[in-house]
Amino acid sequence: MTVIYDRVAVIGLGLIGSSMVRALNEFGLAGEVVVHDHDADTRARAASLNLGDRIADTASGAAEDADLIVLAIPVGAMAAVATEIAPVLKKGATVTDTGSTKSSVIRDLTPILPDHCHFLPSHPIAGTEYSGPESGFSSLFRDRYWIIINGDHPADVTASLTDLLKAMGALVETMEADYHDKVLAITSHLPHLIAYTIVGTAFDFEQQIQNDVIRFSASGFRDFTRIAASDPVMWRDVFLNNSDAVLEMLGRFNEDLAYLQRAIRWSEADKLEDLFSRTRAIRSRIRDIGQLD
Amino acid sequence: MTVIYDRVAVIGLGLIGSSMVRALNEFGLAGEVVVHDHDADTRARAASLNLGDRIADTASGAAEDADLIVLAIPVGAMAAVATEIAPVLKKGATVTDTGSTKSSVIRDLTPILPDHCHFLPSHPIAGTEYSGPESGFSSLFRDRYWIIINGDHPADVTASLTDLLKAMGALVETMEADYHDKVLAITSHLPHLIAYTIVGTAFDFEQQIQNDVIRFSASGFRDFTRIAASDPVMWRDVFLNNSDAVLEMLGRFNEDLAYLQRAIRWSEADKLEDLFSRTRAIRSRIRDIGQLD
Repeated sequence: MTVIYDRVAVIGLGLIGSSMVRALNEFGLAGEVVVHDHDADTRARAASLNLGDRIADTASGAAEDADLIVLAIPVGAMAAVATEIAPVLKKGATVTDTGSTKSSVIRDLTPILPDHCHFLPSHPIAGTEYSGPESGFSSLFRDRYWIIINGDHPADVTASLTDLLKAMGALVETMEADYHDKVLAITSHLPHLIAYTIVGTAFDFEQQIQNDVIRFSASGFRDFTRIAASDPVMWRDVFLNNSDAVLEMLGRFNEDLAYLQRAIRWSEADKLEDLFSRTRAIRSRIRDIGQLD
Repeated sequence: MTVIYDRVAVIGLGLIGSSMVRALNEFGLAGEVVVHDHDADTRARAASLNLGDRIADTASGAAEDADLIVLAIPVGAMAAVATEIAPVLKKGATVTDTGSTKSSVIRDLTPILPDHCHFLPSHPIAGTEYSGPESGFSSLFRDRYWIIINGDHPADVTASLTDLLKAMGALVETMEADYHDKVLAITSHLPHLIAYTIVGTAFDFEQQIQNDVIRFSASGFRDFTRIAASDPVMWRDVFLNNSDAVLEMLGRFNEDLAYLQRAIRWSEADKLEDLFSRTRAIRSRIRDIGQLD
């Protein structure tokens, strides 16, 4: 319960942003939390939820005089917001973002943000299928990884951000942007793309089958609908901004799927059983490191 | 708490079979429950779990004199077990199975089972990623659909089986076999195939990426590993025995995925956002009918 930054600005009050505001408040990590969302309705809902000490009408109004600025917005919106806040950023302020793609954010923001600030791109590996300021909760980051991208910053700047994230319960890791984008393409972006696809495929059936798909969803499909209920704009931006890594992973996936498709067509029982036995083991490894729900 | 069948034989003591034994016992639905599993180790574990009133060493030993025989085994094993039990089946006995493919089971068993029995193929839409006699629980079928395939049977035969399934908490529906196999191909078989594929794709990476895929699995991949941890032999048999419907669904899925792949490559933001918004709605429809966890 130590104040780490005198003033924190959280821009974007969706699941991640509103969870951070709640955690900052609950753990007493900021002298003052100023918040902003570009959507007036979201700002009104944030007010009724008492999110933040002050709600600013503009992004620059929130960022002004802040010691830490968090951009918790879709990656496609980063450049516009950075352009707006750049002129008011305090000397020595730390800027971070919570986007799911890191190379694109670095590419977009580095030329915009002033040299007298420290930009530390980051990414919390945490989430649910819900969106909006009502969906956040202070324990969202507990025991979840939060990746900070390696960069050339004074040690105390990196240490303060790390302390803040750890105080919210996160497990902090550092990584190169390219490597982050590749790993997330397989752990997150491709699974979301596949889930969106299969739920979409079900949508194109005639009405009776569609109704029965919903009724009998407990047999596997339901897990995909949870993933495919994630925020559409956030995910549109992810695919547009990590397209190289996603298309590479998709290429591998398509090859592997074609192999299984052929095994089914030609009744190659051994190939199927062999793969299905190997994939089982990976679940136990997730359990072993404590990352099951 | 009314006895519906004097003697029930449950053959196969995996998740489904052992859950049925527990439910039959807890709800007092059978005068006697005789069980069998082809695997001696599973029989020994079932004995230490007190599963069933009697454990038979052979399938025919369990089926003899039974009023209801439940085949809770992989669909690829149905014909061999039916051949074994056919000579001992009592006149008027009801035989059902719990396989995930119905046309193949009807094709395989109809010529084998004697005319003096009633064969009512069925399928409980319930499960977890766990297997074996320890994994079962009596409430597995509560509020879950259990499909009985339409057939030409005396009304009281169908009514007794329906009563039994309802007494275990299931929502009973009837359906044609072909339609069942088509709906399950999209709700269950295709999702499992996709999950097995993507977890397999992750397995082929070098060790460091593989470790990080496991560490950062909370971002979406983890849901797929749960599905891909399902019983390998059961699922091998499903794909081999519902190959036509699975390959048809896979064809549609591949077309839809190629459409999204192209949208990502050419940065067609609208196409992505449009689909991602539509898929979100299907989740609420599952919630509305009470089939979310």
